Amino acid sequence: MTPTQRDAASAATETVTVTVDLGDRSYPILVGSGVLAEIGPRLAAVTTTRRAAVVTNTTVGRLYLDGVVASLNAAGFEVVTVAIPDGETHKNLASLATIYDALLGARIDRATPVLALGGGVVGDVTGFAAATLLRGVPFVQIPTTLLAQVDSSVGGKTGINHAAGKNLIGAFYQPRLVLIDLDTLRSLPRRELLAGLAEVIKYGIILAPDLFATIEAQLDRILALDAAVLRPLVARCCALKAEVVRQDERETDYRSILNFGHTVGHAVEALTNYKTYLHGEAVAIGMAFALKFSQLRGHCEDATMHRVIELLRHAGLPVEIPAVLRDADLAPVLGSDKKVAQGRVKFVCIEALGRTRFEYVSAGEIAAAAR
Amino acid sequence: MTPTQRDAASAATETVTVTVDLGDRSYPILVGSGVLAEIGPRLAAVTTTRRAAVVTNTTVGRLYLDGVVASLNAAGFEVVTVAIPDGETHKNLASLATIYDALLGARIDRATPVLALGGGVVGDVTGFAAATLLRGVPFVQIPTTLLAQVDSSVGGKTGINHAAGKNLIGAFYQPRLVLIDLDTLRSLPRRELLAGLAEVIKYGIILAPDLFATIEAQLDRILALDAAVLRPLVARCCALKAEVVRQDERETDYRSILNFGHTVGHAVEALTNYKTYLHGEAVAIGMAFALKFSQLRGHCEDATMHRVIELLRHAGLPVEIPAVLRDADLAPVLGSDKKVAQGRVKFVCIEALGRTRFEYVSAGEIAAAAR
Repeated sequence: MTPTQRDAASAATETVTVTVDLGDRSYPILVGSGVLAEIGPRLAAVTTTRRAAVVTNTTVGRLYLDGVVASLNAAGFEVVTVAIPDGETHKNLASLATIYDALLGARIDRATPVLALGGGVVGDVTGFAAATLLRGVPFVQIPTTLLAQVDSSVGGKTGINHAAGKNLIGAFYQPRLVLIDLDTLRSLPRRELLAGLAEVIKYGIILAPDLFATIEAQLDRILALDAAVLRPLVARCCALKAEVVRQDERETDYRSILNFGHTVGHAVEALTNYKTYLHGEAVAIGMAFALKFSQLRGHCEDATMHRVIELLRHAGLPVEIPAVLRDADLAPVLGSDKKVAQGRVKFVCIEALGRTRFEYVSAGEIAAAAR
Repeated sequence: MTPTQRDAASAATETVTVTVDLGDRSYPILVGSGVLAEIGPRLAAVTTTRRAAVVTNTTVGRLYLDGVVASLNAAGFEVVTVAIPDGETHKNLASLATIYDALLGARIDRATPVLALGGGVVGDVTGFAAATLLRGVPFVQIPTTLLAQVDSSVGGKTGINHAAGKNLIGAFYQPRLVLIDLDTLRSLPRRELLAGLAEVIKYGIILAPDLFATIEAQLDRILALDAAVLRPLVARCCALKAEVVRQDERETDYRSILNFGHTVGHAVEALTNYKTYLHGEAVAIGMAFALKFSQLRGHCEDATMHRVIELLRHAGLPVEIPAVLRDADLAPVLGSDKKVAQGRVKFVCIEALGRTRFEYVSAGEIAAAAR
C-alpha cells in the first residue's frame, strides 16, 4: 500500500502526503488547504535552479497566478508565465505550440521546472510540453479542479487530443511534485465539482467499497467542500491511483482498470465534439453504461447496478445514454480508442463493488447494449 | 565493446549486425547492400501485427517507397504511407502534424510499427511521432543518408526544431530495428555524402584514431562508395555510437562527447536560418573551430589541429568560420543550446585524436576565439 502520512512541516495546516512509489521517479502528492501559498519553498526543496515557468489557463490564471508567482518570487524564483485558452477544445497542438513558443522564447534550460496550474487540460498539455521541451524538464502539477486532483495529476499520463480521438498524442512523464490545494475548489463551478466527483465515485466502484459507502453517506458534506471529509477523500483517491500506477505504470494491463467508464465516456465526448459534456459527466454516463453492460452479461447483480446508478443520479450526474450515441456507428469512434487491439476494445466490467474484470468486446456488442 | 558480427541469415550479401545494448530496449542495426528489399521479413521478425506505417519525404519516397511497400506487402503487411516535404526547414511542428493526421486518420493501433524511410529529418520527426502517437508505438529506422546511417538513426534521440533553436523539442525513444542499406547512398547527392562523412570523421577524432587514419588512407574509395570499405566503416561508426549510448543513454554526461563540433555547428546553422549549410557541413565548421579553440587553450598540439583540418578540407568540407558567425552576438544563439547550464556551454575540446575533455565556457569566450 502506498503510504499516507502527516507532513511534519505542515502539521498545523493538516497537510497530508501521499507518495507515488516509482523508484527513482517517486514523488510526493501534498493535499491540504492553503498550500498554494507554500509553492515557493516546496519547489525550492525539489529543484536546483532559481528559475521556474508556470503554465495556466486564462480563467484559473486570473484567480491564482498572482499568488503562485508571489510565493515563487519570495522563494527567490524568477518566473516565466504563459496562459492557454480555457477548455477541453484547447487541449491541442495549438496550445502546445503556445507553450513551446513562450518557454523556448524565454530560454528555459534543462533544470527549469515547469508548473501546471489548472485543471486536467492544463495539466495534460503542460505535462506533455515538459516531457518534450529539451527532451524533458522537471514538471510540477498544481491541480485546481477536483477531477485533476484525484485523477489526471497523478500517474504521469500527459498528452493532447486529436480530431481522431482524445489523448491520442502524448507521453508517460511523471511530475516531481503534486501540490493539491483544496481551497481552489471553492472557485470551481458546481458542475465541474460534480464532474470531478464522478472520478471519485469511480475509485469506489472499481477498488474500494468502503470509499463508495463513504461517498453515499457524506455526499452533502463533500459537495459543501467540508475539508475534514474532503482531505482524506482526495488523499485516498490519490493513494488508490498511485498504487495502481506503481503496479503498472505503462498500462501494460492492470492499469486499464482506471479506464472504467471511459470507453463509452470517450465515445460520448467525441460524438458531441467535446462540447456537450464535461469529461467527468461523460465518464458518469460511461460508468452507468458499464454497469448495465456488466449486468446484461451476467457479471454483476441488479442491486449493484442500481446502487451505482442511484449514487451517480443522487450526485446530479447524467446516467442516460444520449441519443447521439444510440444512433451512431460506434465502430469508427471506438476504433480510435488506444486500448483497441485487433478490432476489439478492452472493456472494464464490474462483478461487484471493488471487483473488476476485463472483457474484449466489439463495437457491435457495445452498440447493441447502448440501444 | 558492442558486438559486431556477421548475420548468419544474410552471409551471402555480407550483412553486418551491430547490437545496441540497452537491456530490454536493445536492438539490432543491420548494415548491408540491398537489404531494403528484406524489410518485410525483417520487420515481421520483430512485430506482432500485420499493419505498418511508412513515413518518408517526397524525394526519398520517389526512389524507394515502392520497393519498401512491395517488400512489406509480400510479407503480409497492410501499409499506410505518408510523405513530408524534404529538407531541414521541415523538421517542425507542421511535419509532425502531417504524420499525426495521416497515421491517426488511418487508425493505427499501439502495435503498429512506424518506419522512417529517409535521412535525419525524416528519422528525427518520425521517431518523435512514434514516441508520442498513442504514447508510444514501435519504431523502425531505415536511414538513407550517410549522416543518418552513422549518427541520427542510432541512439534514440528524436525531435524537431523550433524558431529558438535546433532539436529543442523531442524525446528519447529507441527504435526496435535499424536497417541500413548502403545501396541507397548511390542516389545521395555528393554534397550530402560529404556532409555525412563529417560525422564519420567526428568518430575518428573523438573516439578512434585508427578510424581517423583509415579515412585519411581510404578517402577516395569511401567517396566512390566501395562497399568493401564502406560496410565496416559504417558498422564501426554505429558500434562506436552504440557504446557511448549504452554508457549514457540520457546524456547525463559522457554522451555529450558526441556533441563535439555541434555547439558552433548549431550556431552556424541557426544564424544562416538552416539554409546555407547542411548539418554535416556546419558540424565540419564547428569541428575545425573546436580544434582551433582546443589548441588556443593549450589542450592540443598544433599538429593535431592541422591534421584534422587538413582531412576535412581534403574531403571537400567547409572549415572557415563564416562572417555571419564572426559578427553575431553569440550569447542568445548559444543560450538556446540544450547543453547550456547557468549561462555556460558544455564544450567538447580535443586533447589528442581519441581523447576529449569537457570545458564549461561562456559565449564571450567562444565569440572571441571565432574572431
